[in-house]
Amino acid sequence: MFETIIIGAGFAGAVIAERLATQLNQKVLIIEKRNHTGGNCYDYRDDNGIIVHKYGPHLFHTDNQEVWKYLSCYTEWEVYHHEVLAYIDGKKVPIPFNLNTIYEVFPVALAMRIEEKLLTAYEYNTKVPILELKKSTDTDLQYLADFVYEKIFLHYTAKQWGMKPEEMDSAVTARVPIFVGRDNRYFNERYQGVPKHGYTKMFQQLLNHPNIKLMLNTEFQEVMRFDGDKILFLDKEFNGKVVFTGMIDELFGCQFGELPYRSVDMRVETIERNNYQEAATINYPNNYEFTRITEFKQIHFTKSDRTTILKEYPEPYRRGENTPYYPIFTEENKAGYNKYVDYAKRYANLILLGRLAEYRYYDMDDIVEMALKIYKGAAA
Amino acid sequence: MFETIIIGAGFAGAVIAERLATQLNQKVLIIEKRNHTGGNCYDYRDDNGIIVHKYGPHLFHTDNQEVWKYLSCYTEWEVYHHEVLAYIDGKKVPIPFNLNTIYEVFPVALAMRIEEKLLTAYEYNTKVPILELKKSTDTDLQYLADFVYEKIFLHYTAKQWGMKPEEMDSAVTARVPIFVGRDNRYFNERYQGVPKHGYTKMFQQLLNHPNIKLMLNTEFQEVMRFDGDKILFLDKEFNGKVVFTGMIDELFGCQFGELPYRSVDMRVETIERNNYQEAATINYPNNYEFTRITEFKQIHFTKSDRTTILKEYPEPYRRGENTPYYPIFTEENKAGYNKYVDYAKRYANLILLGRLAEYRYYDMDDIVEMALKIYKGAAA
Repeated sequence: MFETIIIGAGFAGAVIAERLATQLNQKVLIIEKRNHTGGNCYDYRDDNGIIVHKYGPHLFHTDNQEVWKYLSCYTEWEVYHHEVLAYIDGKKVPIPFNLNTIYEVFPVALAMRIEEKLLTAYEYNTKVPILELKKSTDTDLQYLADFVYEKIFLHYTAKQWGMKPEEMDSAVTARVPIFVGRDNRYFNERYQGVPKHGYTKMFQQLLNHPNIKLMLNTEFQEVMRFDGDKILFLDKEFNGKVVFTGMIDELFGCQFGELPYRSVDMRVETIERNNYQEAATINYPNNYEFTRITEFKQIHFTKSDRTTILKEYPEPYRRGENTPYYPIFTEENKAGYNKYVDYAKRYANLILLGRLAEYRYYDMDDIVEMALKIYKGAAA
Repeated sequence: MFETIIIGAGFAGAVIAERLATQLNQKVLIIEKRNHTGGNCYDYRDDNGIIVHKYGPHLFHTDNQEVWKYLSCYTEWEVYHHEVLAYIDGKKVPIPFNLNTIYEVFPVALAMRIEEKLLTAYEYNTKVPILELKKSTDTDLQYLADFVYEKIFLHYTAKQWGMKPEEMDSAVTARVPIFVGRDNRYFNERYQGVPKHGYTKMFQQLLNHPNIKLMLNTEFQEVMRFDGDKILFLDKEFNGKVVFTGMIDELFGCQFGELPYRSVDMRVETIERNNYQEAATINYPNNYEFTRITEFKQIHFTKSDRTTILKEYPEPYRRGENTPYYPIFTEENKAGYNKYVDYAKRYANLILLGRLAEYRYYDMDDIVEMALKIYKGAAA
């Protein structure tokens, strides 16, 4: 019946399914626990016609021409270059911290001095980690590094990960960059945009093939069993390939312990105004419990008398209650993850792919690239 | 695994699934050939934020309080009373033809005479079939009946069913009513409206239960087989109940011949204007190839500088190419249908339900009522 079963209908699952169905003419079954496809990229038009990214803002950016061309078969793109402001010292200023930001937050004389020193020490239009600035013998540059660390990074990251600032490892965290240039954009890749009609429509197109069957609202455990070294689908041994893109610990009943994740409470609000804020996303590193506010009208332009915003409140992941967004990288967690990977090896036909299955962070373009690579490996 | 398998995720399938899942705690699998639920009620917000009924306008109206209350658990309602105008003799006038219409199309003296005669012969606020008017000895009333038959009914119905006017059986077709009253509404039921956030959202709510698994983009033949007197699901005998809401001839490989249907080519257009027409739906009985134009903004109010309209072009049903909307009731077709019903009796666990499976027309409220009844029968 089915030649491949894919668990999860996010980018990893959808791209693999599309390739197998269209290129190898395989019958593919996708099992998805949610009642929609697209994973965390899922979006919808709300009552005001505004496209809302339900699981947080997704801005597509890549230097990978193959990935861009591939997705372009399934969507047109809206030209969109993301800019982010951070609210610090009563002002909303561009981040990553750049030469424009310096002039906005420092007295002019200091700003000019810092600019000159940066341009002498580093190449124009490059990124410099603040850790490197700190090593400089120049006190102005050290001051800049400390300022950015404290105002932009420290409290934001503490909120994001639920730590106290004093618990944070400054050596690790000091990788935050300064951009020695005047480009206010958040990303610098060649290809940037959002799907013209939203991600959900793009996923519908990706999966719009008679070979691809979609089982929604279904936990994989309800129809599959991993038993000894056999995989069963509806109580029958399944010998095709299984691509698993869900949480790896749940794949094996959490027998080596639960892997921790960080979650975010995404709170959508409708505002009775034409426009809410000065940029699509504004970060609040040092105020409030939320980390940032995104105004979706500014990502997918929509004419409406109202506007829709999203406040993101980071919170611990509670299994079965909220969404696992980010793996938490500690030595202990990596060791736990590796036990699952080892255990998974007994299933010769099992492929682990994606943010949750590989317990790592993927940007959207990276997971598409990886899925195309896995497909090519499987097809070879 | 599954206790009931339902084929088709329209009203019939969704209501049965909801009842079985929530009331009997049954695990239910719905198999749906399209990539969405809701059957022909499916709607979506287009790029202008306007809710579009993809398969033609669906206006909910019922006198059945139980049905209204039941659906109200899954949607709020927008108060909406449908009005239809018909373009005749260069004017857009209310239909069903009523006392207001009479004053719009006839000279005042004639209109007053007809009104008086109607009010003398019939009760106020009732419907009178034009066939009955024709039997009247009064020439004005006969004239009215002929006028309505010719201008409102004859050519519209000929387009709708693809017949020449002269082929039409006037005895059958003359059941079109005149409304002896001043109520311009198309429906007179106690409860009228549209789901506040659209039908698709309402179906998502109906099906939003962990017991309901949804298999989209899947023809039932791909996973089921009807073999002798056994029903197989993925090559294993399935002994639970099977509710089939699809085309009954396709259930049995069209072995007694294909049942014919009438289809409609639904053509959606975006218009660069705030507003397109004077009413939500305007019928064109005597002009053009389409039967009617619907402007969706007037059904689900949306603020936009553009407006979205739908022109309906009736056409023959071509299997596998377009959508079967209406069964075609002839003695021959009913006989063909009955062969399938007889054949279906060998499957003790098979239930046939809905417009396509029962080869009959259902309004939305009627199919919900029937599904609730079937559920009660099965649960008893």
